Amino acid sequence: MMKKLGIIAGGGHLPRQLIDGCRAQGRPFAVVGLKDFALPDSIGGDVGLWIRLGEAGKAVKFFHEQGVEEIVMIGPVRRPSLFQLRPDWWTAKFLAKIGFKAFGDDHLLTSVIKYIETEGFKIIGVHEVLGDILATEGVFGKIKPDAQALADIEHGVKIALGLGALDVGQSVIVQQGIVLGVEAVEGTDALIKRCKDLKRDGLGGVLVKTKKPQQEQRADLPTIGVSTVENAVASGLRGIAVQAGKTLIVDRSAVVAKADELGLFVVGIKIQE
Amino acid sequence: MMKKLGIIAGGGHLPRQLIDGCRAQGRPFAVVGLKDFALPDSIGGDVGLWIRLGEAGKAVKFFHEQGVEEIVMIGPVRRPSLFQLRPDWWTAKFLAKIGFKAFGDDHLLTSVIKYIETEGFKIIGVHEVLGDILATEGVFGKIKPDAQALADIEHGVKIALGLGALDVGQSVIVQQGIVLGVEAVEGTDALIKRCKDLKRDGLGGVLVKTKKPQQEQRADLPTIGVSTVENAVASGLRGIAVQAGKTLIVDRSAVVAKADELGLFVVGIKIQE
Repeated sequence: MMKKLGIIAGGGHLPRQLIDGCRAQGRPFAVVGLKDFALPDSIGGDVGLWIRLGEAGKAVKFFHEQGVEEIVMIGPVRRPSLFQLRPDWWTAKFLAKIGFKAFGDDHLLTSVIKYIETEGFKIIGVHEVLGDILATEGVFGKIKPDAQALADIEHGVKIALGLGALDVGQSVIVQQGIVLGVEAVEGTDALIKRCKDLKRDGLGGVLVKTKKPQQEQRADLPTIGVSTVENAVASGLRGIAVQAGKTLIVDRSAVVAKADELGLFVVGIKIQE
Repeated sequence: MMKKLGIIAGGGHLPRQLIDGCRAQGRPFAVVGLKDFALPDSIGGDVGLWIRLGEAGKAVKFFHEQGVEEIVMIGPVRRPSLFQLRPDWWTAKFLAKIGFKAFGDDHLLTSVIKYIETEGFKIIGVHEVLGDILATEGVFGKIKPDAQALADIEHGVKIALGLGALDVGQSVIVQQGIVLGVEAVEGTDALIKRCKDLKRDGLGGVLVKTKKPQQEQRADLPTIGVSTVENAVASGLRGIAVQAGKTLIVDRSAVVAKADELGLFVVGIKIQE
């Protein structure tokens, strides 16, 4: 029998995809939904426990009771201030131990994972459950990047990795060699939307999304989906480049179909880290 | 007699301040206004020639006729696409020579300066004309940064210098250790405004603005003014930190008065480059 999977569900549609994947594989699972992040309409029927972000102790207890052995953390979570967090005892102990004020997002996630594993669970990446969820290398649909787009991708990769090394963000939009915008906490969709008003005439820009070099691969990998494609086209972009093997694609066939329909290229690129 | 100063005027209020400064010093000057950037209401009466960004050849000719020896480039200019530029002969030669597509903003400015100097002019920084325009070290007004603010400033300086090294932007907003936003081409005001919706509860964030390490000091230094202070307060920020000796302050006494009035700190910090 397959090990029971604990799912800590944040925002977006990946939690739904993971739950469906478990069901298709006949893998038992138990879901903890994060209030204000996980979408009740999408996964509400499968959530066994709803918690605030500060109630990690409740999740640990729930997963123990459910006989969970492995845990996947999936879906974006906006990092709160300590004030908003209102931590329970387990969470407060954890925050005190790691020194909450002194780190960026990557350190936080790595620490969360280590600490949860001291409770006897094993944290795994979603790609260890859903084999086809990682971006592959090469062009996804029918449209290929041209020479200007390839130059913009190359520049964007350099910038995105530099930003990532500073633990700032994963995404950058480049048009004709100009960096139109870089992502911090606002998220990729907001980045794409504001670049609509920043773009120049002529050939449109490219969204480049990479994993931060030191980023914990078992949580919070860069993600794109159909809405990323739609937003990119609405903002005048010509394509999306993601890091092959390190980016999650929500519903790849729908992404490819939408990109072909709207005339956008999507390409997975190999990056030496 | 003082050398005649050529002023290439971009946006904002610094061109006005420079013109007033020349007049107060009895220094002769000739102003070229950049269409779509320089503010006619502010400096229109002093502009001797209006040009598009692509008409650098006209400016060179005008300055020669006017007997200009030194030139100051002042006020922000949004970099256009080649399509928007419609270059004249001088500009086209220049662009061909430097390989227009292959560089970022810093390289562009450095090249512009070198090329203009081959025409026999000397490009100088605005601070060589207006002695009191650079930010000094230390707290400007009555309000001082507290410990959390100092930690956020320190983190922000690290990020801003890292971004600058990538030739992306100069500004970053940090709140309680979280990088809320980083600036690319949108400009500091737009960065501040969008961080209003990204901020967390509790102690507000800090705007940190530094010179990019490789940035040409004779053009395009980071700048703040009264509107920066007003926007910062409107977005819930608690303070502004700028690089001492490398940041232009538009109307310092007004900036200090507004910061004191609205309860914001402004501090100049020494950075080892």
